[in-house]
Amino acid sequence: MALITLTTDFGLKDGNVGAMKGVILKIAPQTQIVDISHLIASQAISEAALVLSRAARFFPAGTIHVAVVDPGVGTDRRPIAGLLGNQYVVGPDNGVFTRMIENCEKQGQVVRFVHLNQREYWLPQISYVFHGRDLFAPVAAHLAAGVILNDLGAPIGDVVRLNLPKPASTPDGLQGEVIHIDHFGNISTCIMRDDIGDKVIQQVIVKGGVIQDFVNTFGEKPPGSLVSLYGSSDNLLICEVNGNAAQKLGINIGDIVKVTLKDRAPA
Amino acid sequence: MALITLTTDFGLKDGNVGAMKGVILKIAPQTQIVDISHLIASQAISEAALVLSRAARFFPAGTIHVAVVDPGVGTDRRPIAGLLGNQYVVGPDNGVFTRMIENCEKQGQVVRFVHLNQREYWLPQISYVFHGRDLFAPVAAHLAAGVILNDLGAPIGDVVRLNLPKPASTPDGLQGEVIHIDHFGNISTCIMRDDIGDKVIQQVIVKGGVIQDFVNTFGEKPPGSLVSLYGSSDNLLICEVNGNAAQKLGINIGDIVKVTLKDRAPA
Amino acid sequence: MALITLTTDFGLKDGNVGAMKGVILKIAPQTQIVDISHLIASQAISEAALVLSRAARFFPAGTIHVAVVDPGVGTDRRPIAGLLGNQYVVGPDNGVFTRMIENCEKQGQVVRFVHLNQREYWLPQISYVFHGRDLFAPVAAHLAAGVILNDLGAPIGDVVRLNLPKPASTPDGLQGEVIHIDHFGNISTCIMRDDIGDKVIQQVIVKGGVIQDFVNTFGEKPPGSLVSLYGSSDNLLICEVNGNAAQKLGINIGDIVKVTLKDRAPA
Repeated sequence: MALITLTTDFGLKDGNVGAMKGVILKIAPQTQIVDISHLIASQAISEAALVLSRAARFFPAGTIHVAVVDPGVGTDRRPIAGLLGNQYVVGPDNGVFTRMIENCEKQGQVVRFVHLNQREYWLPQISYVFHGRDLFAPVAAHLAAGVILNDLGAPIGDVVRLNLPKPASTPDGLQGEVIHIDHFGNISTCIMRDDIGDKVIQQVIVKGGVIQDFVNTFGEKPPGSLVSLYGSSDNLLICEVNGNAAQKLGINIGDIVKVTLKDRAPA
Repeated sequence: MALITLTTDFGLKDGNVGAMKGVILKIAPQTQIVDISHLIASQAISEAALVLSRAARFFPAGTIHVAVVDPGVGTDRRPIAGLLGNQYVVGPDNGVFTRMIENCEKQGQVVRFVHLNQREYWLPQISYVFHGRDLFAPVAAHLAAGVILNDLGAPIGDVVRLNLPKPASTPDGLQGEVIHIDHFGNISTCIMRDDIGDKVIQQVIVKGGVIQDFVNTFGEKPPGSLVSLYGSSDNLLICEVNGNAAQKLGINIGDIVKVTLKDRAPA
Repeated sequence: MALITLTTDFGLKDGNVGAMKGVILKIAPQTQIVDISHLIASQAISEAALVLSRAARFFPAGTIHVAVVDPGVGTDRRPIAGLLGNQYVVGPDNGVFTRMIENCEKQGQVVRFVHLNQREYWLPQISYVFHGRDLFAPVAAHLAAGVILNDLGAPIGDVVRLNLPKPASTPDGLQGEVIHIDHFGNISTCIMRDDIGDKVIQQVIVKGGVIQDFVNTFGEKPPGSLVSLYGSSDNLLICEVNGNAAQKLGINIGDIVKVTLKDRAPA
């Protein structure tokens, strides 16, 4: 049974995701469809790239990930599909797959894209405003039904990539930025576990707060404490135990985060 | 594999949709279930009618659409099921299927309804407040499992219909009203592409704004611009590029929309 | 086809539920997955216990219910799985299954639990902060794929239980508390239909209001009326017809509810 995931900024109230699923199941009735998120902030391509890449790595080989955060719908931005490692992606050529591509490249996996230009795999009528339903859903369904990637469009090597924020070295540590705020108000930074290496975090400084406590898990400190820790995707997080750190500190995506580091004491 | 869709105003936090799915899968384990929306505004039958009809037309033949926006639950409003074209519907007799019925009639398709009065296809115990779970879900599941429509109830020809807003002619164009505001704040009017025909839209006037720019797609104007365009269901929309038009203009469902038209210049 | 349900406080925007589904479908591709709720209030174990127990009883035998509201993730709180009647549960040992357990005991059904300590059924890497993805999802998937409960961990008899609020007798009736507020603002109390028995409800008193009208269903009173009635899980509810009672009355979980009762007049 083929598996398609959906990641969009469509919200959940208007039935647009339902329409996409109808299109898919009409073409490929045996498909299993999984929602990754439909609450990506409107037009937030970089948030979609992050959310998708964090979830996608847990899916089986052959999964087809459709991502539609598409402010350029109806313009000449290209519709694309790709093979990234052993998974497929379908969506607009606006950088939404940047993180999945970079993950593949880091692991030496295949990265291949086509420009979707074979209209026989789209709905007969294409609106100017809803390619998720009219173009990306049917293409994904045809992939699920066995059409091969190269039949869907022409190979391309120049897909759009986002310029992802990376941490920079400072005299006493690292400087990065906030890249995500989750449902709990946990603040995710672009600083990764590997960036810290075997140094020790002394403090984490953001707008509105200095976090002194680095922990492994929430339960180490009482509710209301501000802590930093590694998240489940290995990003450095800033959290309030049983609370909402982003709200408490007034944090937004893009805010600067500084980490001071010291050498680990010899054992 | 049978396919059931769900459209309700139940929200997503209380597990009521989950209970309906449990009921369905207990009766018809092989069924695929797709959510169309559970965020219809509370008791907003006309919004459900719109959202359902926009999505339903993309589903395969034989799909069973369950709609439960049901302020009259437990009273003597009838539970009904119907065949509309090649798709089934199940829900309260309160007008929620009006738009699907009208679409069928326009295309000369079959419209048949039964009054659900065969209790052997319901749960053994029927609460006064949750027919979605106790009556509509099991009826849909029995349909999915192969029971025929006429075994579920007695044929009726007088289902309730909503009085849907339609545009009226004015000396210089058309007057209609706002019928939906989507997740992005895009404003949907009852004025359809066919109502404009081959005239040219000069301006669109709503409470709080006059929209001069008619476009094909969002990308034609810079972010923040107010534009009108045809939506993916052919309604005339008022949108803010990458913004929230309804919020910007203070628009609510039912607000008046005026369009001034002129003849297309000869080619 | 095995059936797994998910109940969490993860919200719907970050893709965490999607990651859990990817994990499940990689291990047990034929599984059907149903969301019960992902909008449990953050860390609200007792709300999860309520929502889950209300929905679970409608699912088929063999269903596997995963509940992850887990403020103690990464600490030494135990991960557990259990057989409750003919359904399975998987989640943290923090009381989230209390209501399901009590329902089983009331009906004389089997209640068996194991402490999940067999790491071969978890993901190879376990984060400190996301056991839903790394531990509970794979365990549920292995159950779905046919692994038996006793192979997943060691039998235990001392799972954590919540101290659930129960109504107390007063000179003129009963006193209980608010245990849930639903999407519509309907107020659910811990007072059950069985607690009232064949007495007659005279009035229901909560912070901010005295409700005089006890009804069977909403349609008996005009919109805006405050009424009490039995909900679809037999709790005594306080509702505003077509309105939001919790908002109108300023009610929160835990608020006191008093009911005055009188004997039923002889027939």
